[in-house]
Amino acid sequence: MVDRTVRKTSRAARRQAQTRADLIRAATELIAERGLDGLRVSDITERADVAFGTFYNQFKAKDDIVEAVVADALVGLAGSIENSPASDDPALAVAATTRAIVRIAYDDPTLARLLVNLEHAEARFERIIRPQAGAVLERGMATGVFDIDDLPTVLTMSIAAAFEVIRGIVDGRLGEGADLTCAAVLLRMAGMDAATAAGYAHRTLNQ
Amino acid sequence: MVDRTVRKTSRAARRQAQTRADLIRAATELIAERGLDGLRVSDITERADVAFGTFYNQFKAKDDIVEAVVADALVGLAGSIENSPASDDPALAVAATTRAIVRIAYDDPTLARLLVNLEHAEARFERIIRPQAGAVLERGMATGVFDIDDLPTVLTMSIAAAFEVIRGIVDGRLGEGADLTCAAVLLRMAGMDAATAAGYAHRTLNQ
Repeated sequence: MVDRTVRKTSRAARRQAQTRADLIRAATELIAERGLDGLRVSDITERADVAFGTFYNQFKAKDDIVEAVVADALVGLAGSIENSPASDDPALAVAATTRAIVRIAYDDPTLARLLVNLEHAEARFERIIRPQAGAVLERGMATGVFDIDDLPTVLTMSIAAAFEVIRGIVDGRLGEGADLTCAAVLLRMAGMDAATAAGYAHRTLNQ
Repeated sequence: MVDRTVRKTSRAARRQAQTRADLIRAATELIAERGLDGLRVSDITERADVAFGTFYNQFKAKDDIVEAVVADALVGLAGSIENSPASDDPALAVAATTRAIVRIAYDDPTLARLLVNLEHAEARFERIIRPQAGAVLERGMATGVFDIDDLPTVLTMSIAAAFEVIRGIVDGRLGEGADLTCAAVLLRMAGMDAATAAGYAHRTLNQ
């Protein structure tokens, strides 16, 4: 009896997660095809082959699914680096993840523009990035490569600084190379000396 | 003839500047007395004793005079530090100015809240702070205490990071001591090693 309830619940949860994934995939495709302007919830649900009302079980508003599309891309990117050999070294993981995420502004300006134009964009970026960023900084503190007294403040400053670099590139205020600077400066913020930080940022070039 | 034109122009410019200063002072008083909600342009012009229409020669909208009120306070604060003996040392100037500006969030939460709630708040903060921040970083680069390759990116990151600390304190996400961390981390970003940066941040405590 208990078993059956558990199985039922998990089946419902799995189905919910599948629907959510279908909606995000559909929105990603539609944004890639037509951009954000004119993206309609009915087009998303039609493409995902789910009922219109189902959308609002998963998302409060259109900006929330756009955040999910962006989060999917960023977390996927960060995850692929976390699973690479580079991630054994927290400093190299910070440098590689930072450069990969900032380079979106050069290599996938559509996605970067989605990110910086979201309502409460910084707060959403922080929500997406903070768990992984916090974990890698803590790992570096534990192994002694980072020197951070006040993690909440440093984390807040680091994420805000990286976000502003992405926005600066999207807006055309910052040019080529800002991703390298950003990676090196984030390592300085974590307590590395300038030369070592620059060395780590450059090592990611050949990854 | 030329002389008279020049004199006339400069008299008109002086009068304009005086009107602007009167409007900003009036708005500052009204905000201090009643807060931002319900601040009306007609109240500001009445208090400043100028014609209603004059306001719109100086400011496009109410948020623009609020920005001017905030800018006045921040630039005044930064200027008083620039004129102190501390400012001979660019590292001490960065530390002292950073702490003084971030401490507004603890000591004058009304002003800090005005700042973070402005429309395009980060962009406005950047516009206010960037000239002085850029000048002091350049001074430190020239004297060799700072090590910065890519000033536009570092400046963008520093200003965004400091702004987010102010917002974090206003929102209650960051606690006491965030101003010290912020000052030390900004010096790290400028290339100082962690111990020296922390030393400078703490030296400002007894200023």
